[in-house]
Amino acid sequence: MPQISNRGQEMPQSPIRKLAPLAEDAKARGVKVYHLNIGQPDLPTPKAALEAIRHIDRTVLEYSPSQGYRSYREKLVGYYKKYHINLDADDIIITTGGSEAVLFAFMSCLNPGDEIIVPEPAYANYMAFAISAGAVIRTVTTTIEEGFSLPKVEKFEELINERTKGILICNPNNPTGYLYTRREMNQIRDLVKKYDLFLFSDEVYREFIYTGSPYISACHLEGIEQNVVLIDSVSKRYSECGIRIGALITKNEEVKSAVMKFCQARLSPPLIGQIAAEASLDEPEEYSRETYDEYVERRKCLIDGLNRIPGVYSPIPMGAFYTVARLPVDDCEKFCAWCLTDFNYEGETVMMAPASGFYTTPGAGKDEARLAYVLKKEDLVRALFILRKALEAYPGRTE
Amino acid sequence: MPQISNRGQEMPQSPIRKLAPLAEDAKARGVKVYHLNIGQPDLPTPKAALEAIRHIDRTVLEYSPSQGYRSYREKLVGYYKKYHINLDADDIIITTGGSEAVLFAFMSCLNPGDEIIVPEPAYANYMAFAISAGAVIRTVTTTIEEGFSLPKVEKFEELINERTKGILICNPNNPTGYLYTRREMNQIRDLVKKYDLFLFSDEVYREFIYTGSPYISACHLEGIEQNVVLIDSVSKRYSECGIRIGALITKNEEVKSAVMKFCQARLSPPLIGQIAAEASLDEPEEYSRETYDEYVERRKCLIDGLNRIPGVYSPIPMGAFYTVARLPVDDCEKFCAWCLTDFNYEGETVMMAPASGFYTTPGAGKDEARLAYVLKKEDLVRALFILRKALEAYPGRTE
Repeated sequence: MPQISNRGQEMPQSPIRKLAPLAEDAKARGVKVYHLNIGQPDLPTPKAALEAIRHIDRTVLEYSPSQGYRSYREKLVGYYKKYHINLDADDIIITTGGSEAVLFAFMSCLNPGDEIIVPEPAYANYMAFAISAGAVIRTVTTTIEEGFSLPKVEKFEELINERTKGILICNPNNPTGYLYTRREMNQIRDLVKKYDLFLFSDEVYREFIYTGSPYISACHLEGIEQNVVLIDSVSKRYSECGIRIGALITKNEEVKSAVMKFCQARLSPPLIGQIAAEASLDEPEEYSRETYDEYVERRKCLIDGLNRIPGVYSPIPMGAFYTVARLPVDDCEKFCAWCLTDFNYEGETVMMAPASGFYTTPGAGKDEARLAYVLKKEDLVRALFILRKALEAYPGRTE
Repeated sequence: MPQISNRGQEMPQSPIRKLAPLAEDAKARGVKVYHLNIGQPDLPTPKAALEAIRHIDRTVLEYSPSQGYRSYREKLVGYYKKYHINLDADDIIITTGGSEAVLFAFMSCLNPGDEIIVPEPAYANYMAFAISAGAVIRTVTTTIEEGFSLPKVEKFEELINERTKGILICNPNNPTGYLYTRREMNQIRDLVKKYDLFLFSDEVYREFIYTGSPYISACHLEGIEQNVVLIDSVSKRYSECGIRIGALITKNEEVKSAVMKFCQARLSPPLIGQIAAEASLDEPEEYSRETYDEYVERRKCLIDGLNRIPGVYSPIPMGAFYTVARLPVDDCEKFCAWCLTDFNYEGETVMMAPASGFYTTPGAGKDEARLAYVLKKEDLVRALFILRKALEAYPGRTE
């Protein structure tokens, strides 16, 4: 039997995936599981998108252009303008989800062995795409004590060597909900400029910023226009995770032309998804407002609730719909598994993502979990109550 | 400005892509272009698929499972059974087009530097996916003189070394339309067994076999069940290129589990595409029969027509909807470009894919072109007439 590849062996399995069978078992035993672990919004997809799909009058579901439909890309120009991001339609390449945008960015910009610096905790799949491209992720650690703010310049410079080719940020951040300040973004800009690095900036949560603080896109930073590769997706902003439509945005012609070769090889992004995503741009403003207001309430509900549980601490996330909280337990991986295997309160339990899966530093985030607020408020309240009960009963409790 | 990756520079640009702007220019000048170059069927998508899309009653377009919907995979088991391919639903992993299946197969099975042997001419994007995975494609050349039949065992063995990890075939073949015989498939099986190789078998054209010859799938070969990775797609069989639904099929648990890690990293295959593909399996048999009958006629029309043009020769393709024909010209790349830039007959011209782009051996296929028969018969007849006129007028004609 031939051997599979090393890459196939090294690819990380996310901690959520490891817990998934335990959740299935719990459900099979009749236990109700509150999913605080997922990034799939429960909010409705825009009606305009669903209507557009229902009214498709094509007889052939044919290939779309490899870079995506021009009509959609032109409409996106107007969308980004609202965020003071000035683009041409040709700066936008439509991808199969934000996932493909990350993969193609790495494939196009990084050689095997090249390094990128990523603040951790970080979205676990960046690692998977880096492994796919043979690139190496080096992490600078942000901490819950410092509210997950950006580490000092020196921490980055310690890692920079001749193989360093880029910095990757996620802003607003998954998993922490952190929003980088103007000062922090300028710090990143200066590093990018000084060492001539790529700046990969995943900004799929820009719709969800809950403080008065400004959203500073990588595209707003002056003097590094040729270095920036923006990653985007409609999954979160329109609750359209399933249609697999994202975008890779850059003004760098060399990068564009390399990315296009990968796009041409995979022929085209999903046709029907593009129709839905394009129609979503016509949804009345009230859709975004209602979605936003809903998350504002849920965020308050979750964060206040967490900080009221003895021994639990969550910083206040400024964006996205996650928080990383510290729990009074010996090992969050064990605790999260235990909640699914050995615990229930009145037939109910909670599922969370152990934060260790978002760090590469061994031992980091051991007493932290990522919690998403993509459940209805009543369910969040109940889930928080169950979590409190679970922490009271957990034998590995530390405080 | 940071440097892009070597991979980004090395990625091939298909010869069709190079001609695309010339075709646009021709159209802008008012010239009608008959597209003999493309693999996008003009035939309708099954009504059942279009209806399923129009009746989607979801309010959230959410992630689907990373391996694809179980209901769809279970239904596919029945589809494959009709071809005497016996599978469990868990042997089938749904991918974003056949393209992603090829990429994930290479990523999971091949280390950077590993080699696979591919009979050429071959689908040009295999090379792109090999470059993405850092793998190396070595080719055994098939020739138009021998009707593109499989080269002798010795030709394969000459290329086998310690880095050889697999053989890739496309059957029925794009671009040649060749269908491997039982004897040829047994030859491949013996090689795979003797050297313990992976056998990647792209069988997306199985629906289109026009002779009495049997379709021998890689999955029919005994004794190499653990070596086979089947690549599939609904693009061609249902005229659903745009929905991006393919499949990777294997009985090898190690490969499955590695592929699943890549699947989980990209989260999920397209949701709406899966709904369309699943519904397509309910389309009455008459859809396939009508599609088939249409291609039978077109094939006869194209091949007979080609062989009637002085100096042109096309073997009779047994499957798919392409043929590679020899043209009496100095250089097919030049000729195909010339048809778009310097020629028209009564305001019309033809676009073909120079076959050199399907070979890696320098100079191979220089006087060959790939022609697809995905146009209506009347259009094929007219296109053949225009091609004859073009050959008469072309200054680089050799006979």
